[in-house]
Amino acid sequence: MPGESPHMTETPEPNIVIVGAGFAGLSSARALKDVRAKITVIDRHNYHLFQPLLYQVATASLSPADIAQPIRSILKDQTNTRVLMGEVTGIDRHNRQVMVNGASVPFDYLIVATGARHSYFGKDQWAEHAPGIKTVDDATRVRADILLAFERAEAESDRERRKALLTFVVIGGGPTGVEMAGAIAELARNSITRDFRSITPRCARVVLIEAGPRLLPALTPTMSDEAHSALERLGVEVRLGEAVTNVASTGVTTAKEAIPARTVIWAAGVRASAAGQWLDTPTDRAGRVVVNKDFSIPGYRRIFVAGDTAAFRLGDDRFLPGVAPAAKQAGQWIGQMIAARIDGRLGPDSFRYDDLGSMATIGRREAVARLGRMEMKGLIGWLLWSLAHVYFLIGFRNRVSVAASWAWSYVTYQRGVRLITGRPASPSEKLEKAA
Amino acid sequence: MPGESPHMTETPEPNIVIVGAGFAGLSSARALKDVRAKITVIDRHNYHLFQPLLYQVATASLSPADIAQPIRSILKDQTNTRVLMGEVTGIDRHNRQVMVNGASVPFDYLIVATGARHSYFGKDQWAEHAPGIKTVDDATRVRADILLAFERAEAESDRERRKALLTFVVIGGGPTGVEMAGAIAELARNSITRDFRSITPRCARVVLIEAGPRLLPALTPTMSDEAHSALERLGVEVRLGEAVTNVASTGVTTAKEAIPARTVIWAAGVRASAAGQWLDTPTDRAGRVVVNKDFSIPGYRRIFVAGDTAAFRLGDDRFLPGVAPAAKQAGQWIGQMIAARIDGRLGPDSFRYDDLGSMATIGRREAVARLGRMEMKGLIGWLLWSLAHVYFLIGFRNRVSVAASWAWSYVTYQRGVRLITGRPASPSEKLEKAA
Repeated sequence: MPGESPHMTETPEPNIVIVGAGFAGLSSARALKDVRAKITVIDRHNYHLFQPLLYQVATASLSPADIAQPIRSILKDQTNTRVLMGEVTGIDRHNRQVMVNGASVPFDYLIVATGARHSYFGKDQWAEHAPGIKTVDDATRVRADILLAFERAEAESDRERRKALLTFVVIGGGPTGVEMAGAIAELARNSITRDFRSITPRCARVVLIEAGPRLLPALTPTMSDEAHSALERLGVEVRLGEAVTNVASTGVTTAKEAIPARTVIWAAGVRASAAGQWLDTPTDRAGRVVVNKDFSIPGYRRIFVAGDTAAFRLGDDRFLPGVAPAAKQAGQWIGQMIAARIDGRLGPDSFRYDDLGSMATIGRREAVARLGRMEMKGLIGWLLWSLAHVYFLIGFRNRVSVAASWAWSYVTYQRGVRLITGRPASPSEKLEKAA
Repeated sequence: MPGESPHMTETPEPNIVIVGAGFAGLSSARALKDVRAKITVIDRHNYHLFQPLLYQVATASLSPADIAQPIRSILKDQTNTRVLMGEVTGIDRHNRQVMVNGASVPFDYLIVATGARHSYFGKDQWAEHAPGIKTVDDATRVRADILLAFERAEAESDRERRKALLTFVVIGGGPTGVEMAGAIAELARNSITRDFRSITPRCARVVLIEAGPRLLPALTPTMSDEAHSALERLGVEVRLGEAVTNVASTGVTTAKEAIPARTVIWAAGVRASAAGQWLDTPTDRAGRVVVNKDFSIPGYRRIFVAGDTAAFRLGDDRFLPGVAPAAKQAGQWIGQMIAARIDGRLGPDSFRYDDLGSMATIGRREAVARLGRMEMKGLIGWLLWSLAHVYFLIGFRNRVSVAASWAWSYVTYQRGVRLITGRPASPSEKLEKAA
């Protein structure tokens, strides 16, 4: 087999390197906790991020610390594992080395789970005007953009400019887009209604654009319709079947119309990280590494790719979806399988995806959810959504803090985290830039 | 009187402009809540910051949102007041205009309370290597610096470099310096002890340098000694009577020694904001505007300066100290006085500073405090300190959140907010820069 010596014997404590401490990477590390091995977890950040709630940081409901936890804390009792903060720059699959921080870390087994970034379908110039939400810094940037738009609108005397400032466009009708649109509408309509004097936040316009025929394609058409109606009840304008043709500082253009808007959020497409290039192995159109039935890459039975970085075929034409439970299950399975190989035991049965369902919240009291074959909506859906998210949050402190923040904002309609930070101090700078 | 027309009659609704929504500005705004006037509060940030706890953000105990609250939320029910986020660039005292965001806002009364920035005593090149903590962005930067130092030390094989990475120098023995040094020592010794594999955070070195003869000069010598001992019990090396002669990327030099250190924090000197230049009025050595007995500036009885921006003489050689309660009292008094003038009532008696005391916490179970003439230390001091700070935090949510965070870290020794954000993603960049 290329890249592996046929006579290689198992070292007593093999090196296992895990690149990326997202859901897949972390769950594989945990599945390896009792193995006699030297495990190194590498991540460019010092924290694991609960990405499904990142949109709540972007809309000022939660603090970054509520949904992020130091990787070291999570793994501190796992004595066979060390954590290395650093940026991976390449992988030498033949000599089994990961390049990080100018040094190289050797591996016997490698798991790459470095997630995905936004994809602008080749229109990278849109990125500047339509940021997406994948990292904490993305989220605090979008939070500042949204809050600054209201600040600038309050100071703006020109009617058209004010209207553009109070127009928020979300591109993409998947869970992130639906949740963002609902959260912005609520922020505008309820939370800050009494805070401004010149503008009426109630008049803010929130537009959700989806190129496909319905929202939330992972749910049934009935649930898509339900989400659609719930968003409209919050005042969101939903545009289906409208492909975006241009994004600029002045707004968004679709095949049907031009929408002047100063705040545009991208929730439309993702592209896998650079792992495919590092590993010099085939990828699909979205940059995801094509993997075997055991998540290994062709020709290398000790190099695995998981999470949003992998294209794992589920049998027919479907692929393992890019959601947290799928990443967790894959990571855990890979960890168990490596553990068995090292121990010389029989590994787990071949990977089977346990589809727990799919859900999206719309504002502060509605959600649509599918749990296995059961579908739920409205307040019941919302409660289920809340329970599921708090349950999956790593760390007791975060659970308590998130639950308290939600209870607080539920009771008072207030957003506790409306801070414009990490930005030019004054809105005028942005004003000038955009003008 | 220069700058004011002698025949000016009171407009029915005079314009009152307050620049700066710190303790002084906000308390003056609140004291004006029932006045028939048009009040404009201008701040470069959208939030009021509880600065006395900023060091806890810098040492990963609290989230920024725990100690910051949107100014609009605080004033939302005060219908005579509008809030403008913007950067003031100048003040035309003769034509009574404040320049902000490229426009001008007219005033009949003006209160300037724009606080203070760090002063490096003319050595501005030190700022890059020894950041201070005055804003949220300062605090998250210092937090990232401290946490990155541990991350880099974990990956560093060279002994000397690792030692420099694990040395933290705090310059300045006032409350901020004492609290920072104690908090870093605790972070290193207790909170992250088990998180690292190559380094022993317990061996981190924390040095507190004070040029004067004792710590906390606002307290009695007995209490200074108490703070000194408490810091040493936490393992902090306290250097008194050592003036810093140089700060560079490699460390700190005093008249007596050179201390190799990669993380240096400045808590030594402050300089008032640019208000003195805007107002073209005399200032003291620290840039503070010299004010009359009613906080007005010489020659302008409707322009007031308060908080850290003002030099207010308390009678003999003492000045109103730059602490939150003093700023609050001054702001409130100015507000009441303007309210009385507008209503044609007799104003409040001349301003008298009510000295509530002074306190500083040292780590998680010791504090020194003076309450009027009573002095307290140890756990009692700490409890008093905690109560005072939570009590003064604006906003119920923040009180609950801060109390919960403290309880959590008190019980578990954990720091919940250990996030490296708003930084180059990888520690190697900083490494290269510093190398």
